[in-house]
Amino acid sequence: MPNPTAAMLVIGDEILSGRTRDANMHYLAGELARHGIDLCEVRIVSDRHEKIVAALNDLRADYNHVFTSGGIGPTHDDITADAVAAAFGVALDIRADAREILAQHYARTGLELNAARLRMARIPDGASLIANPVSSAPGFTLGNVHVMAGVPAVFQAMVAELLPKLEGGAALFGQSLTIPRGEGEIAESLKALALAFPTLAIGCYPFQRDGAYGATVVVRGAEKAQVDTALVQLAALFPEATEASGA
Amino acid sequence: MPNPTAAMLVIGDEILSGRTRDANMHYLAGELARHGIDLCEVRIVSDRHEKIVAALNDLRADYNHVFTSGGIGPTHDDITADAVAAAFGVALDIRADAREILAQHYARTGLELNAARLRMARIPDGASLIANPVSSAPGFTLGNVHVMAGVPAVFQAMVAELLPKLEGGAALFGQSLTIPRGEGEIAESLKALALAFPTLAIGCYPFQRDGAYGATVVVRGAEKAQVDTALVQLAALFPEATEASGA
Repeated sequence: MPNPTAAMLVIGDEILSGRTRDANMHYLAGELARHGIDLCEVRIVSDRHEKIVAALNDLRADYNHVFTSGGIGPTHDDITADAVAAAFGVALDIRADAREILAQHYARTGLELNAARLRMARIPDGASLIANPVSSAPGFTLGNVHVMAGVPAVFQAMVAELLPKLEGGAALFGQSLTIPRGEGEIAESLKALALAFPTLAIGCYPFQRDGAYGATVVVRGAEKAQVDTALVQLAALFPEATEASGA
Repeated sequence: MPNPTAAMLVIGDEILSGRTRDANMHYLAGELARHGIDLCEVRIVSDRHEKIVAALNDLRADYNHVFTSGGIGPTHDDITADAVAAAFGVALDIRADAREILAQHYARTGLELNAARLRMARIPDGASLIANPVSSAPGFTLGNVHVMAGVPAVFQAMVAELLPKLEGGAALFGQSLTIPRGEGEIAESLKALALAFPTLAIGCYPFQRDGAYGATVVVRGAEKAQVDTALVQLAALFPEATEASGA
């Protein structure tokens, strides 16, 4: 059975403006790979209602899961919950259980649960909450869409809460070799290898180091034995190759 | 006149698998902001022909410019040129000027211009070349789509070649303040500020540092005087705020 598929939707002007470098995408990609869910597409859109709604509706139709990051805080530019409710055509209201989580959090910290903070208890009808062990304000799952915070520490904590509840598939085995030759010299061999192992994903990532060309070849697949066999064949063709770290 | 709009399409399994952290998106976002082109959306898709074609056709219809990164090397997984040709419905052949650039490069370096390397001279009909001062193999522009390499050094060199030829708009002025309060306490003030300055983009990015909550507020707009006025009003509301680096 093929692995479940997923897309990620990052909501955030700050990444598109070049101000911030995204951290959540790289984190989620690694976690999904380990859990056997194939991340197939990522979109980053700005804080505009209609863009978020359109992307949500595209992605939730195309993939088994959609993970979103950003836009669920208390400020005027936090509009993700509204967009999710609109995409699903459901109402969005302050919900008692979410409000109670916030009330307890602010009672503990001695801060006021004001109108802005209460915005974080607005949950689309039919959603289930995703716990936030870092700062309490919950994320939520509606249908196949999982809505999480943009602050990396909170995003990561929510992913840790959520992932064990989702059915994963086979984690891909990956191995890689670094070959001290230009891509153009190994391309024919790689093409032959890809044809010989049609179920493996064989990627080639060129680099230049100290003025010399080289390429890292990454072989990934569901069956470890097959990945190993392909790697052995490749290493035999290029005896000068070395094991690369971090397949 | 509003600034030209842009999208970026990153082609690369290696980012979706979590193996590599994207560097080109953050670089392009910064360069476009300085050039007065608004980056509105980014998509990352895997090395699958139909996914690349669909994303290209979506994005080139929606934005003034589409910048792509990745998939134009000599190996079997380099399929971007084919996808661009398919998206535009034009032929893709080895072109004399691109071939000549490669021939001179490999003559200089003493390497063979073999069949794999010749793939990099395949240019869709009607495209113009983007020079590659790093490793010669050119990118290309077809219509409003600018196709560039994925290797960061080459991508950056191609962006430097390309951007001066594209009409830019007003670079946005950005200023930011760091306020040592939780987002929930400043949210009402920010909302009022956003209503008072409807042409400014006001973003709020919370953080936790040494156990204390804080938020960086970023104000961006085309007119410096207006950005400054909004910042002064905000600073008056929160006298404990400090200037943040890197708006």
